[in-house]
Amino acid sequence: MTALDDRSVQSTVTTGPITGSEKVYHDVHDPDSGRTLRVPQRRVGLSNGSHLDLYDTSGPYTDTTASIDVHTGIPATREDWIAGRGPVDGASTQLAYAKAGVTTPEMRFIAAREGMDPEFVRSEVAIGRAVIPANRCHPESEPMVIGKNFLVKVNANIGNSAVTSSVPEEMEKMVWATRWGADTLMDLSTGKRIHETRERIIRNSPVPVGTVPIYQAVEKVDGDPAKLTWEIYRDTVIEQAEQGVDYMTVHAGVLLRYVPLTTERVTGIVSRGGSIMAAWCLAHHEESFLYTHFEELCEIFRDYDITFSLGDGLRPGSVADANDEAQFAELRTLGELTHIARSHGVQVMIEGPGHVPLHKIAENVRLEEELCGEAPFYTLGPLATDIAPGYDHITSAIGAAQVAWSGTAMLCYVTPKEHLGLPNRDDVKTGVITYKLAAHSADLAKGHPRAQEWDDTLSRSRFEFRWQDQFHLALDPDTAQAYHDETLPAEGAKTAHFCSMCGPKFCSMKISQDVRKYAHDNGLSTVAAIDQGMREKSAEFAEQGNRVYLPVAE
Amino acid sequence: MTALDDRSVQSTVTTGPITGSEKVYHDVHDPDSGRTLRVPQRRVGLSNGSHLDLYDTSGPYTDTTASIDVHTGIPATREDWIAGRGPVDGASTQLAYAKAGVTTPEMRFIAAREGMDPEFVRSEVAIGRAVIPANRCHPESEPMVIGKNFLVKVNANIGNSAVTSSVPEEMEKMVWATRWGADTLMDLSTGKRIHETRERIIRNSPVPVGTVPIYQAVEKVDGDPAKLTWEIYRDTVIEQAEQGVDYMTVHAGVLLRYVPLTTERVTGIVSRGGSIMAAWCLAHHEESFLYTHFEELCEIFRDYDITFSLGDGLRPGSVADANDEAQFAELRTLGELTHIARSHGVQVMIEGPGHVPLHKIAENVRLEEELCGEAPFYTLGPLATDIAPGYDHITSAIGAAQVAWSGTAMLCYVTPKEHLGLPNRDDVKTGVITYKLAAHSADLAKGHPRAQEWDDTLSRSRFEFRWQDQFHLALDPDTAQAYHDETLPAEGAKTAHFCSMCGPKFCSMKISQDVRKYAHDNGLSTVAAIDQGMREKSAEFAEQGNRVYLPVAE
Repeated sequence: MTALDDRSVQSTVTTGPITGSEKVYHDVHDPDSGRTLRVPQRRVGLSNGSHLDLYDTSGPYTDTTASIDVHTGIPATREDWIAGRGPVDGASTQLAYAKAGVTTPEMRFIAAREGMDPEFVRSEVAIGRAVIPANRCHPESEPMVIGKNFLVKVNANIGNSAVTSSVPEEMEKMVWATRWGADTLMDLSTGKRIHETRERIIRNSPVPVGTVPIYQAVEKVDGDPAKLTWEIYRDTVIEQAEQGVDYMTVHAGVLLRYVPLTTERVTGIVSRGGSIMAAWCLAHHEESFLYTHFEELCEIFRDYDITFSLGDGLRPGSVADANDEAQFAELRTLGELTHIARSHGVQVMIEGPGHVPLHKIAENVRLEEELCGEAPFYTLGPLATDIAPGYDHITSAIGAAQVAWSGTAMLCYVTPKEHLGLPNRDDVKTGVITYKLAAHSADLAKGHPRAQEWDDTLSRSRFEFRWQDQFHLALDPDTAQAYHDETLPAEGAKTAHFCSMCGPKFCSMKISQDVRKYAHDNGLSTVAAIDQGMREKSAEFAEQGNRVYLPVAE
Repeated sequence: MTALDDRSVQSTVTTGPITGSEKVYHDVHDPDSGRTLRVPQRRVGLSNGSHLDLYDTSGPYTDTTASIDVHTGIPATREDWIAGRGPVDGASTQLAYAKAGVTTPEMRFIAAREGMDPEFVRSEVAIGRAVIPANRCHPESEPMVIGKNFLVKVNANIGNSAVTSSVPEEMEKMVWATRWGADTLMDLSTGKRIHETRERIIRNSPVPVGTVPIYQAVEKVDGDPAKLTWEIYRDTVIEQAEQGVDYMTVHAGVLLRYVPLTTERVTGIVSRGGSIMAAWCLAHHEESFLYTHFEELCEIFRDYDITFSLGDGLRPGSVADANDEAQFAELRTLGELTHIARSHGVQVMIEGPGHVPLHKIAENVRLEEELCGEAPFYTLGPLATDIAPGYDHITSAIGAAQVAWSGTAMLCYVTPKEHLGLPNRDDVKTGVITYKLAAHSADLAKGHPRAQEWDDTLSRSRFEFRWQDQFHLALDPDTAQAYHDETLPAEGAKTAHFCSMCGPKFCSMKISQDVRKYAHDNGLSTVAAIDQGMREKSAEFAEQGNRVYLPVAE
C-alpha cells in the first residue's frame, strides 16, 4: 500500500478559517510573464469597519472555497513558472537568476507578502543574504524568503520516530503548524515509512519542507553509522530531491580533527547528524564524506535548486559548552563551504545553536555573519538556561527573540516536550505560537515596516474595549477568548468596559478614557493648558460625574 | 466572624516537599547576637550520591517536620531580632543600620542564602543599591534582598477582585506561589474583605508582602477617586503598616502637569493607581496629595521599616507608548522622591514598565539607575509585543530576561491570563515558573556565582541518562516527568539510554558517549593525537561495536 492510498488520513486534517479571520488574495501582476500572482493574506475584520491583513502561511486549508484532497495534494501553482524558464550561467536556481538580474515570480510573490520592493528581494538573494527555498520538484509551495532584512521566519519540526506517531498524525501536524504560522517545516522522521510520510507531507505542504538526509541514509544501514558510504548518502539525497525537499541539513562541518574537541564537554555532541558523522569519522579514521564530496553534493543541489542548511553538528547541548572551540571550529568550516556552494549557484543558510546563555548570543550572530558571508542564520532557540525541562519552549523563546533581534533570519521552534518526548498536536501549536511571538518581538525591535501596525491595532481595540477585535487580532484567538470567558462568560462581558482583573470599579483603561475625554473637552491636552489657572474646570468635571465605573454588565 | 475563625481555609493549603527535594537548614552563627540563624535550602538528592542545594522560598510548608496552622500563622522568627535593637540616627530601618555599619541578622541570613559576604550585603543596602523589605510588624518573613548584585527576584501578584475569588483561594495561591519560587507577594485585593485577606496572607507568608494602599483607600470612598483625601489614604497606610506590609506601591510621581502627556497615547494610562491619581488631580486641579505629603509618608514608612516601591503610574500599556515623554517625566520625579525617602532613612525601589519592545528596554534601566541613584528596579515584564493575549507570560518573560540582564533586581510576574482575566492556581504556577527561568537566565548572563552550577548539574544528569535526577533538578519536576512519561511511561524508560524524541537508534547523547569513551580509551582527546596516523585503531572501534543503540528497554 502506498501512502496515497491510505484514506484514513483525510479526516484528520484541520480545515476552515482561523476564528475571526478570512482568507483573501492580493493579485500581483508579473510584468515579465504577464501572469497574475495570487498572494494569500489572513484578513482580520474589525467591528469598527476596518480590517488588518496579516502574513498568511496556512495555504488552502483556511480557504473556505478550496477543495482539499490530501490524496491528490494541493495545487502546483509554481509548475508553469518553473517550466517557463531555463538555466542562467548553468544554473536554474533563485541565486543564479538573482545574480543575472532576473526578478522571478517567486521574488515578486515574496515582495508582496513582505511589503517590500521586488528589486530589493532580488538584490538580497543575489548577494546571498537571503534565500528562497524552492525545489523545482515542489511546485505546491508558496514562495517565501529567509533573510535578516525580512520578517523573521519560524520552522516547525515534525516527523515520526521509531517509538511513536503515525503518518496521519504527522499530516495533521503539518496542516496544524502552518495554520498557526510555521513558515517552513522539517520532516525529521526516523522511524518506519520515512519515504511515504515525506511524500504525503510535501504534496500537501504550502510551505518549504526541509529534511536531514543522513537520518534516512543511516536507516538504510540498520542504524550503524560506520556502514554509511558516500554512495548511500548521495542516493538518499537524490531520492529526497526528486520528492521536492526544498532545503537539506548537511553536517559537512564535523571534521575528524574536531571530534576530540568535544570529549571534555558537559554534554558532548547533541546533534543527531553530528554524532553520526563523528562516529563514522572515528570508525574509519577518514575525513567526513560529506566534506570530501561536498562539490558533488553542490551539483545535485544546484540541479533541483535545493538550499543548503549547513548543520551545526557540534552545537552546544548545554550552556556550559556554549561558544567553545568545537562549535566555532565547525563554524569556520561552514563558512568555507558556504563560498564553495555559492560558486556553484547554490543557496546557503547556516544552522546555529542550541543552548547559549544570553550574554553569549550576540557573538554567535557576529561570527556567523563574518565567517559565512552573511548567509541567513537559522538557529534552534537558543535555550538561555538548562534548568527548565517542560518549559523549554519558553527558555528557548527568550534566546530566540534575542538572537533574532541580533540578526537571525529563521528560528527553529522548540516545544514544551523538548528533551522529554515527541511533541503532540497541542505541543506543535504551543511551539509555533511561542516562536511567532518571539519572531514578532524581533521584527518590532528591527523596525520591520509592517510589524508595529499589528500591535497598535490590537492595543487600540484593547483600549476601546472592543473585546472581540482583541481576540481576533491575537496570535491565538481561541485561547485568548477562552481565557477571558473563564472568568467572565456572559455575553455582556464582551462589551463591558472592564475585565475580571480589576473589576468595574478599578478599570484603569476606563478611568483613563474619562481623563482623556475630559482633557480634550476642556482643551487640556498640553502641559501649558493645565498650568493655566483652570480650577474652575474642576467643579465641572465633578458634575459630569467623575465616577469611574459602570454597573457590572450582567 | 474574623478571618482567623474561618476553618474552611486549612484544607486548601498545599504542604509537603517538592518532588525529589527535601528541606534542609544551614545553621549560620551571628557573632553580634550569639544567635544561630537557620537558613532554609531546597536539597535535591542525586542518584550518584551527591546533592545540590537550591535557594528556597517555600517556608515551613515544604518542611515535613513543621506543623502548619493557618489560623495561628507561621513562626515569628524575627520577633526577638527586632525587639533586641533600637533606632540609629532616629531610624530602625535596614538602611539606617547599614549606613551606621551595623550588620543585622537579616543581612547575615541573606548572605548565607545568596552565597555572599555579609559585609557586601550591608554595603549594598547602605548605598541604596539593594533593599531588604522587612516591616517590623511582619516577623514571620524570611529575610531576602532585592538588588542588581544578587539573584534576580520574582514577585507574584495575588488578591481577589470585585468579580471573582475568595480568601481560601488567595491563601492557597500564596502558599503555591512561594512553593514554586516567588520571592515576594503582592496582595492586590480590590474586592470584599481586603483587610481580612491581607491579615491571613501576612501571618502565613514566609516572604515579604507588598500592597498598593490606594486600592483599599478608594474602596473606602465607594470607588470615586475624586473623594479621596490625604487623611483617608494616610490612615489606610497606617492600617496596612500595622498588619506588617513590607513594601507599598505609591504612585507619587503622577503629577497634575503630566496627565495631558498621556492623552494622545494609544493606551493612555494603564496603571490602576496612576489612573486613580490622574482622575483625582484633574477633579481637584491640585497637585497629587501623594506628592505634596510625601515627607509625612516617609515618616510612617520609617517607623515600620516599610520599603517604598515608587509606582510607575504612567507606564506604557502598549509598545507604541514605550519610553515616551509621560513615562520618563514621571521617572525623573521618582528620582527626586528617592533621594527624599533615603534622607529619612527609608528604603526605596522603583517600579518599571509595562510594554516595551526589545530595542527600548536597556534605555529604561540606564535612565532608572541614573535618575534614581541606582535604587533597585522592579519591572512588570516588560511585554516585548502586544499581539499575544493568552501568552503574555511568554511575551513578558522575553522582555523580563532582557531587562533583568540589563540590571533589573526584581521581576513582577505576568500570567497567561494577563489582559484577559484573574489568574487561577495553575496560572500562578505557570507565571512563577516562567519568571524563575527568566530570572535565572539573567543570573547566568550576569555571572552570579551560584547560577551555572544548577545548569551544569542538570545537564550532566541529562547526558548520563539519569532521568530521575533530571526531573528532580528541574524547576518543575512534576511537569518534566509527566511530559516524559506521556510517550515512554514504562519504568524501564527511566533508565533507558534514549528518549522518545529520537528513539534508540538515533540518540545523539548515546553516540556521543561512545565517541567520548573511544577517544579516551585510545588517547584521542587532542587534535594532535587524531592527526597522528591511527588508522589501525579504526578496525578496533568496529570490533568494540560501533553500533550506536541499545535494545528498546521495555
